[in-house]
Amino acid sequence: MGTRIGKSTLIYTGKPRIRSYASIVGPKEGKGPLADTFDMVMEKDDLMGESSFEKAERKMYKEAVKFAIEKGGLVSDNIDFLIGGDLLNQIISASFAARDLGLPYIGLYNACSTMAESLLIGSALIDGGFANTCACAVSSHFSTAERQYRMPLELGNQRTPTAQWTVTGCGCTVLQSGAAGPAVTCGTVGRVIDYDILDANNMGAAMAPAAADLLITHFRDTGKKPSDYDLIATGDLGMIGMKLMKELMQKESITLGSNYIDCGCEIFSADQDVHAGGSGCGCSASVLNGHLLSMLEKKEINSLLFAATGALLSTTSSMQGDSIPCIAHCVVIENVR
Amino acid sequence: MGTRIGKSTLIYTGKPRIRSYASIVGPKEGKGPLADTFDMVMEKDDLMGESSFEKAERKMYKEAVKFAIEKGGLVSDNIDFLIGGDLLNQIISASFAARDLGLPYIGLYNACSTMAESLLIGSALIDGGFANTCACAVSSHFSTAERQYRMPLELGNQRTPTAQWTVTGCGCTVLQSGAAGPAVTCGTVGRVIDYDILDANNMGAAMAPAAADLLITHFRDTGKKPSDYDLIATGDLGMIGMKLMKELMQKESITLGSNYIDCGCEIFSADQDVHAGGSGCGCSASVLNGHLLSMLEKKEINSLLFAATGALLSTTSSMQGDSIPCIAHCVVIENVR
Repeated sequence: MGTRIGKSTLIYTGKPRIRSYASIVGPKEGKGPLADTFDMVMEKDDLMGESSFEKAERKMYKEAVKFAIEKGGLVSDNIDFLIGGDLLNQIISASFAARDLGLPYIGLYNACSTMAESLLIGSALIDGGFANTCACAVSSHFSTAERQYRMPLELGNQRTPTAQWTVTGCGCTVLQSGAAGPAVTCGTVGRVIDYDILDANNMGAAMAPAAADLLITHFRDTGKKPSDYDLIATGDLGMIGMKLMKELMQKESITLGSNYIDCGCEIFSADQDVHAGGSGCGCSASVLNGHLLSMLEKKEINSLLFAATGALLSTTSSMQGDSIPCIAHCVVIENVR
Repeated sequence: MGTRIGKSTLIYTGKPRIRSYASIVGPKEGKGPLADTFDMVMEKDDLMGESSFEKAERKMYKEAVKFAIEKGGLVSDNIDFLIGGDLLNQIISASFAARDLGLPYIGLYNACSTMAESLLIGSALIDGGFANTCACAVSSHFSTAERQYRMPLELGNQRTPTAQWTVTGCGCTVLQSGAAGPAVTCGTVGRVIDYDILDANNMGAAMAPAAADLLITHFRDTGKKPSDYDLIATGDLGMIGMKLMKELMQKESITLGSNYIDCGCEIFSADQDVHAGGSGCGCSASVLNGHLLSMLEKKEINSLLFAATGALLSTTSSMQGDSIPCIAHCVVIENVR
């Protein structure tokens, strides 16, 4: 049985645990600084032997879920609900994977904040008594997202300095009541914040205010401060968004110091020519289900505030002159006892 | 505190209640047989004074949520979470409305099953102790959906006999712990089912197997039978899907009799030239938050099994030759004590 504190922070009193986790990434991510933390790196190209990038993304999604289930010593029948989404129109990666996996399925969409959203919902279902085991999985794919949101890949358009590189990656977390891993102890649901950014090639600037609003709410709701966590990781603000995030928090007299990282700044190295960093919901999903959860497992950190950030635009809204509304959600994952 | 029975049926032991509900529909729906059950009908056209159909849909969404909140004698601050989605790419109707409403927001996508999905999640958050009051809202709009999923409206394409008419409508249910209205007593999460239907103009045939799989699971999980409910309403199977649904259920020796209706068959009359009936997630959302909940309120029925059905295709998946995976979710809403 859970409870809520403040405006929108869920407290999971039963402390749903992380039974297992897995991540799969594309070749470029496999050449980055976090390469060793992923369970699988696509070798040759980002097609995984499929005939389209979209089919490759759904294969990656399906394989990541199966991988996480196997790593937990579980079988598909042990999973009560599959919870997740992706960036494609009508979240076809998650939905087609859910078809093949045959699991009861709850589809979500909050853009690149969906990994945190899925953990919020999955933890609530377990803590509320409705589920024993949930698989939470989220993906993005450079080649599917770029051609859907921006330009045909074949055009080879020059990218602006503020642009981020959509991560080809999928992460899956298997949450389970009473398992041995770290616990999801609380989470905060974000609001949609819009600072009137119109440039779809500057997602970091668009998302930073939503991330700041979320963390301010989280700290106010919980009475915590940044130094109460060993690590704070935002989703995919990138270099520009991360800088703005620190400034916005500083305005509220909250200092984000050396225990603050952004998954979009971690996944690629400076020489990989990704401009402002990584993005896409697979960015925070694969970094969480690789680097971050393995740090918790090895006790290099014992508490993590994971705040994934999403830009809720569509090509239609952008073409109609709308600005980019953004959202962020967070969960706290801790080694307990 | 909730529990789960069988494979995927959530039991809300605390019985979250319906505090209030509201619906807004377009002019065509306002000329149909359920006209009197909606709170508002767009008068002149389906633009609501906006400059695009997409902006009109999000206005309808926002106004329906505000209407439901007001009808419950509540203010925006009383709402803990807004939960919902729509059919547009990146669910921009729900997300932009969430921005304007300023509420903590959980975005969902399960196509036309999203109304039931939102009630499943909202009820779980309340019953699990995480929320006191949730607004669950879902919309669709003929002019936005048709041009996104099918053809430009200006083409005036002839529609096939199996085609359904996307409903312009939004429904919002305000769920609250301990309110006076009917209770959400349980719900079943569906699986993705795909019978290899390729025709995006025959959604009823694509969705019927998912609806049948859901109800079979629900009856097996709960030990109930169709006659245990005063009314069973599927979302938007339409004439063809409803007929197939009855046949599929009959194969499992489950007879759906005169207490079974489909929202897509109810919302338009035979002379409105909609071919196989209404569709779109606003179809079941507006019929639930108009006709069905008012029947419960007037005690014309005391128990309702509401099963919304969704087709999880995208134009990309269809163009790549994929079949149409479908899903359905259901909730049971009852007058209690």
